[in-house]
Amino acid sequence: MRRAYAHLARRFAKLAAIEDSLAVLGWDTAAMMPEGGAPARAHQVAVLKGIAHATLTARGTEALLDKAASEALGPWEKANLALMRRRWAHAAAVPARLVEAFSKACSESEIVWRRARAKDDFAMARPHLERVLDLTHRIADAKAKGLGLSPYEALMDSFEPGLTQATLDRLFGQLEPALKALLPRVLEAQGPEPLPLPGPFPIAGQAALGLRAMRLLGFDFEHGRLDVSAHPFCGGVPEDVRITTRYDEADFFRSLLSVLHETGHALYEQGLPKEWRDQPVGQALGMALHESQSLIVEMQAGRSPAFLAFLAPLVAEELGVSGPAFGGANLVRLATRVRRSLIRVDADEVTYPLHVILRYRLETALIAGALAVKDLPQAWNDGMRELVGVVPANDREGCLQDIHWYDGAFGYFPSYTLGAILAAQFFQAAVAAVPVIPTALGQGEFAPLLAWLRANVHRRGAQVSAEALVAQATGRALSPEPFLAHLERRYLGSATL
Amino acid sequence: MRRAYAHLARRFAKLAAIEDSLAVLGWDTAAMMPEGGAPARAHQVAVLKGIAHATLTARGTEALLDKAASEALGPWEKANLALMRRRWAHAAAVPARLVEAFSKACSESEIVWRRARAKDDFAMARPHLERVLDLTHRIADAKAKGLGLSPYEALMDSFEPGLTQATLDRLFGQLEPALKALLPRVLEAQGPEPLPLPGPFPIAGQAALGLRAMRLLGFDFEHGRLDVSAHPFCGGVPEDVRITTRYDEADFFRSLLSVLHETGHALYEQGLPKEWRDQPVGQALGMALHESQSLIVEMQAGRSPAFLAFLAPLVAEELGVSGPAFGGANLVRLATRVRRSLIRVDADEVTYPLHVILRYRLETALIAGALAVKDLPQAWNDGMRELVGVVPANDREGCLQDIHWYDGAFGYFPSYTLGAILAAQFFQAAVAAVPVIPTALGQGEFAPLLAWLRANVHRRGAQVSAEALVAQATGRALSPEPFLAHLERRYLGSATL
Repeated sequence: MRRAYAHLARRFAKLAAIEDSLAVLGWDTAAMMPEGGAPARAHQVAVLKGIAHATLTARGTEALLDKAASEALGPWEKANLALMRRRWAHAAAVPARLVEAFSKACSESEIVWRRARAKDDFAMARPHLERVLDLTHRIADAKAKGLGLSPYEALMDSFEPGLTQATLDRLFGQLEPALKALLPRVLEAQGPEPLPLPGPFPIAGQAALGLRAMRLLGFDFEHGRLDVSAHPFCGGVPEDVRITTRYDEADFFRSLLSVLHETGHALYEQGLPKEWRDQPVGQALGMALHESQSLIVEMQAGRSPAFLAFLAPLVAEELGVSGPAFGGANLVRLATRVRRSLIRVDADEVTYPLHVILRYRLETALIAGALAVKDLPQAWNDGMRELVGVVPANDREGCLQDIHWYDGAFGYFPSYTLGAILAAQFFQAAVAAVPVIPTALGQGEFAPLLAWLRANVHRRGAQVSAEALVAQATGRALSPEPFLAHLERRYLGSATL
Repeated sequence: MRRAYAHLARRFAKLAAIEDSLAVLGWDTAAMMPEGGAPARAHQVAVLKGIAHATLTARGTEALLDKAASEALGPWEKANLALMRRRWAHAAAVPARLVEAFSKACSESEIVWRRARAKDDFAMARPHLERVLDLTHRIADAKAKGLGLSPYEALMDSFEPGLTQATLDRLFGQLEPALKALLPRVLEAQGPEPLPLPGPFPIAGQAALGLRAMRLLGFDFEHGRLDVSAHPFCGGVPEDVRITTRYDEADFFRSLLSVLHETGHALYEQGLPKEWRDQPVGQALGMALHESQSLIVEMQAGRSPAFLAFLAPLVAEELGVSGPAFGGANLVRLATRVRRSLIRVDADEVTYPLHVILRYRLETALIAGALAVKDLPQAWNDGMRELVGVVPANDREGCLQDIHWYDGAFGYFPSYTLGAILAAQFFQAAVAAVPVIPTALGQGEFAPLLAWLRANVHRRGAQVSAEALVAQATGRALSPEPFLAHLERRYLGSATL
């Protein structure tokens, strides 16, 4: 008899259905909804979120969690119970009034930030960011107490369960000097500018190319779709994964790379363990793990010379183009061009982590109270000079560029670079275990790589932490070394992958 | 102080948000979802429906309804309170176990019906229909007691609040002999067969034509969209109305007429009173009223000679076609061809009500216990012979053709013909009040008609019953006479409308 656990499992299955509904509504908002539908949609989302919160924090939950802990549970169920407790602790730690005030402040701040960014006016956004930061402090303190973590860790914990600042400091501490040393060598070593891709490329052809790439990668169209939104993302639910891209008639390559990226996310969702589908343990492990799956597909496999050589004739066929600009060698040059640049989302694989390390430094200082919002623009520019070697001419290209802080998402940035580190470590282990993978990728065959990911990553769900998972899957502790080795090989060696 | 009412209003606003979410999910299921998403979607819908039911029947609701009745309320609030009580009474009358058994029986029956219809095998569907009917009896009895209505009225009441069998018997009693007398005269009087429309018609052109027609009609694209589904419908929410159509490359006209029809539904939704948006009184009045708004646009205005003459050059332009088959006169012949036929959904304006009267006869007999399911095929065929003058050669074209009963929707069929009656009565009154309407329609101008409908129908929401609304808007009691006069004029006279 495991009555307390069974009771909780039913409750979390209900919660999963509500959150799945929210996921579909979220996709619809970005991909389908006409503008005039926004206020009604906001009301729907607020009501469903309220119901989800009430379901999670219903009276007696803590007692049930305690009771279930003494019931006879298998390893998946034990892991599931721990995740239930974590979810409950996050939700129960913060008073409803504070949640509401934070949600309202973030909405207002985001709206002002859009205008402030367009006008390059940090002063306009500043009071809103101060308000969001103030409420974030209060939430972080409340959660830190409930979860037994530092305030910054308590914020990260929503995105990256179990990740400590000590781990991050270790990883980033290794990465920063290595990348700073690597960057000038890469810039020195890289060949001539790639040829530009002469367009226009009609959208129908781009869409056909994207769908063809998704089929190559193993995306299951019985359980998902490709649509269009302003910012590409992966949404929906595991049985019905909705990825999006955006098309620019002048540039097909950007859309194609974003399809590879989002398909990586989608393959993870489609591969999660079905038997735990409606429980926390059957859901994605965290944002870094998720990002690692998109980066394996986009960066490790998708931008490799072998795969791009395979892809070039398909591009020519679907878009009706020809010439050296569309050859594999030029696509590789385009896909691996390194620059000291200002905008994170446009940054290359080598400099991207430096952009993230800057944000990690600044947001830990903001949360610790060591940096005031008013000093953010200067600190940003100083950090960019030191880390990337360029300085923004304005705040639009500086501390106003990312939505995250203005929307209350402190503690999220590290996931991007953790994802890159995990991707490299997984990929290295996959190739070691299944040596045919590189040859297969050169033939457009993703099945051997996908099979390894399914068995070693996707089907594990959230049974263990990302750190434990990577150790079990690769036989060594989480380390930036495979990522650095990958960069050396691709940008300084004569890599075919 | 109206504390009980205010409490209820907050509860019903929450309910509206849950039902709106369900409406968006329903649209997505039909228009977007890949097949593999179905089981997860079914779980989402079941959970949200359960939450909606619990919200509606929460403990203490009856006491709040009683208390609010003694508070000082305005006319809209009084009407709203009455609708709250009706919704609560429907939900509270039926025990949860019976609701679940019915829902399960309907799902199973629908699946078997699809196969039985394909195989023309009534015996296969029969036990499932018997089970659904048995549970329908129990639900009807429970609701009849709670609502003080006859069992059949209690079933109709979900679709057509307040409609009595006495009213239906009166209307259908007038309509039946009049249509039986009219039909041979119409068949005798109608001209030669229309010219067939030689295709194919590429879907892109058909979509452009449909969107152009929607703009003409006044559809607000800031608050809605057009998509594709297997069966055209109007879904979504008033701020974001989602209509669908389906395209057949061999036949653009069917899709175009369905777009007119669904746009009529959409204009009603877009015109509901915004200030009562999240309360029952601000929602659509009933299925017949809804259908009247689609039929005014499709039948009264859309299939009129004046509008089709205006439309013909637009068809030629958007589809790149020419010749007499695409002229206004031939489109009129196509849009108004009358036949004694077997399938309701394909029936013309003149014979359609006879199909509905047959179903009304049979379903009242089934609910009254005067007709057994095993005798349904014979009763159907006898009724078709008597009412329409043709007899199905098999049950697929007979009592297996419609999903309604097999899916548990008893009491719905009358709404179709009530809608046609209401449409004619509204349209007659609109033209009398705003004489420019016919001329305007001939110029593709829907604004004068839409303005009358907005003021006299849409903005009234559900403040009064359909019978009261039609009396107030047209100055006379609900009557089939305007509908019969419309048929005489269009099919026997020299109508331009």
